[in-house]
Amino acid sequence: MNSYVLGIDLGGTKIDAALFDESYNIVGRHRDKTEAWRCDEEVFQRIVGVASAAIKSAAVDPAQITAFGIGSPGPLDPDTGYIINTANLPFKNFPLGPRLSEEFQRRVVVHNDVDAGVYGEFRRGAASGAQNVLGVFIGTGIGGGLIINGGLYNGFSKNAGEVGHIVIKAGGPRCGCGNRGCMESLASRIAIARDIKKAIKRGARSKLARHAGKGKELLSSKDIKKAYDDGDQLVRKIVHRAARYLGIGLGSLVNVLGPEMIVLGGGVIEAMGEDFMARIDRAMRKIAFEFSATNLRVVKAQLGDDAGVIGAATLARESAQRAGADERT
Amino acid sequence: MNSYVLGIDLGGTKIDAALFDESYNIVGRHRDKTEAWRCDEEVFQRIVGVASAAIKSAAVDPAQITAFGIGSPGPLDPDTGYIINTANLPFKNFPLGPRLSEEFQRRVVVHNDVDAGVYGEFRRGAASGAQNVLGVFIGTGIGGGLIINGGLYNGFSKNAGEVGHIVIKAGGPRCGCGNRGCMESLASRIAIARDIKKAIKRGARSKLARHAGKGKELLSSKDIKKAYDDGDQLVRKIVHRAARYLGIGLGSLVNVLGPEMIVLGGGVIEAMGEDFMARIDRAMRKIAFEFSATNLRVVKAQLGDDAGVIGAATLARESAQRAGADERT
Repeated sequence: MNSYVLGIDLGGTKIDAALFDESYNIVGRHRDKTEAWRCDEEVFQRIVGVASAAIKSAAVDPAQITAFGIGSPGPLDPDTGYIINTANLPFKNFPLGPRLSEEFQRRVVVHNDVDAGVYGEFRRGAASGAQNVLGVFIGTGIGGGLIINGGLYNGFSKNAGEVGHIVIKAGGPRCGCGNRGCMESLASRIAIARDIKKAIKRGARSKLARHAGKGKELLSSKDIKKAYDDGDQLVRKIVHRAARYLGIGLGSLVNVLGPEMIVLGGGVIEAMGEDFMARIDRAMRKIAFEFSATNLRVVKAQLGDDAGVIGAATLARESAQRAGADERT
Repeated sequence: MNSYVLGIDLGGTKIDAALFDESYNIVGRHRDKTEAWRCDEEVFQRIVGVASAAIKSAAVDPAQITAFGIGSPGPLDPDTGYIINTANLPFKNFPLGPRLSEEFQRRVVVHNDVDAGVYGEFRRGAASGAQNVLGVFIGTGIGGGLIINGGLYNGFSKNAGEVGHIVIKAGGPRCGCGNRGCMESLASRIAIARDIKKAIKRGARSKLARHAGKGKELLSSKDIKKAYDDGDQLVRKIVHRAARYLGIGLGSLVNVLGPEMIVLGGGVIEAMGEDFMARIDRAMRKIAFEFSATNLRVVKAQLGDDAGVIGAATLARESAQRAGADERT
């Protein structure tokens, strides 16, 4: 009998669910908005709805679905499946794993959304085969995940890998987390957009001057990339500085973790492309010790928006397989 | 038959060798100066001499010594036993492990000196029982070691754990490694002494004014502690700042590694004591996420100068036991 697993990627704006066969082909899929302003119970029912619709969209007997995996913003407890708290969702000490398990009568694993994405890249993407991987996703914020000795590493805190919140410039700009000078406060899309807007307000010339006027609205990665390609000197300067800060942060992490591979993904990386990656790489190698950086590869994530559902599904299947093996022994 | 293991701690100034019985009692010991200005072959012979003297000092049949462990400054390759390079020793691509193994006809394991110390604290000291440990030794420089999932973690680079060289203040003071703003450049004894001397040169009043005049000579941790206890305002200000920087660096590492325990050791920690530790702890908890820091313990290293030999000996015995188990299967 064929077996299927469902991977769910839960975000602040959308819910994405995909059903995978044993070769990790997508045989069913559904997406919908999260509507995160709703209460926890309503958002939970939306997750149930998206999962059900993804299953319904596949020509598969639901009895053949062995496990569910879901990647969610954290902090969360992967052992119990509880979401402890999240900035952009209504969940607070919410038993997301147990509730989904009750609803669908299946094994459900819950992981940090970035961890799920990094695990997807590790098992079926850019980091296949590596045993020690640092995954960094640079978008609105900066998230990370660690593969250590061939497995996802959560640490004693169960929430390791928060690489966006290493301080690389003490006394630097205020970060969303409350501290000053975190990598996220210097090199995320929010940081780049903030620096562009601030410079324009101070009178700097830029093709983004019109966009930048629009109150709190965030510049998109595409807007930034277009201005960059158009030769906008202000934007180029600020983007290059962000790449240098990313290099400083990654170089520091290389000195601590000694990884085999760094996988870079997320909206900023997707938009800015190879030159941006090359700048990060160069800046990283200035900070990292030579003996740690020589054989280190920096690669671009391959799975794009699918990394989360693929990773969650893979984690679900592997967890079910381990449980099956345990039962047989 | 009783079995013994020899632990060697190789430093830039001294070589320390201790022979341990199965309960890790020291049954023989010898120390001597490294005389690191000599060539590699001469320093190697000094290591051989110290090891032989430690063995001779014990009433033990040399046939009962099963393995040697040595902690050395790195970078080095624990798999081959080669020292790649070191700042304060003449070794360059030197086969320290193979040469010692040939000399004594025993299994020899070679590890980074700080790793050996952290492993000692993990197996027989302050971090006993914890599975994920961040060890940080703050002395002339700042070194670190990682215990991950119950084992020493070296990473793909084989030289992970260089926590002194995370950049926490981009554009900050020049570090010995060449970069700017590393934790070591802000909070090691060299950094504290540099800041005190610089302030005195600029006219700040301090009880250390006389010492600080003496050219390049480094202020000792004890000098600094004495001035601190005497209420020297300049010294207090600079020491408190160093504690804050250590907290920023450790908080960043907690966000990435999510450890169960941080073990702090080294000359600065030994000299400055509990109040300094408490200041580091508080500053760390400002940077670390609450969910990562709540159950995290920050403890002082217990083994003092013995951590290195105990750790090296433990690593040697465990390696010999694994090899024995492999042979039996």
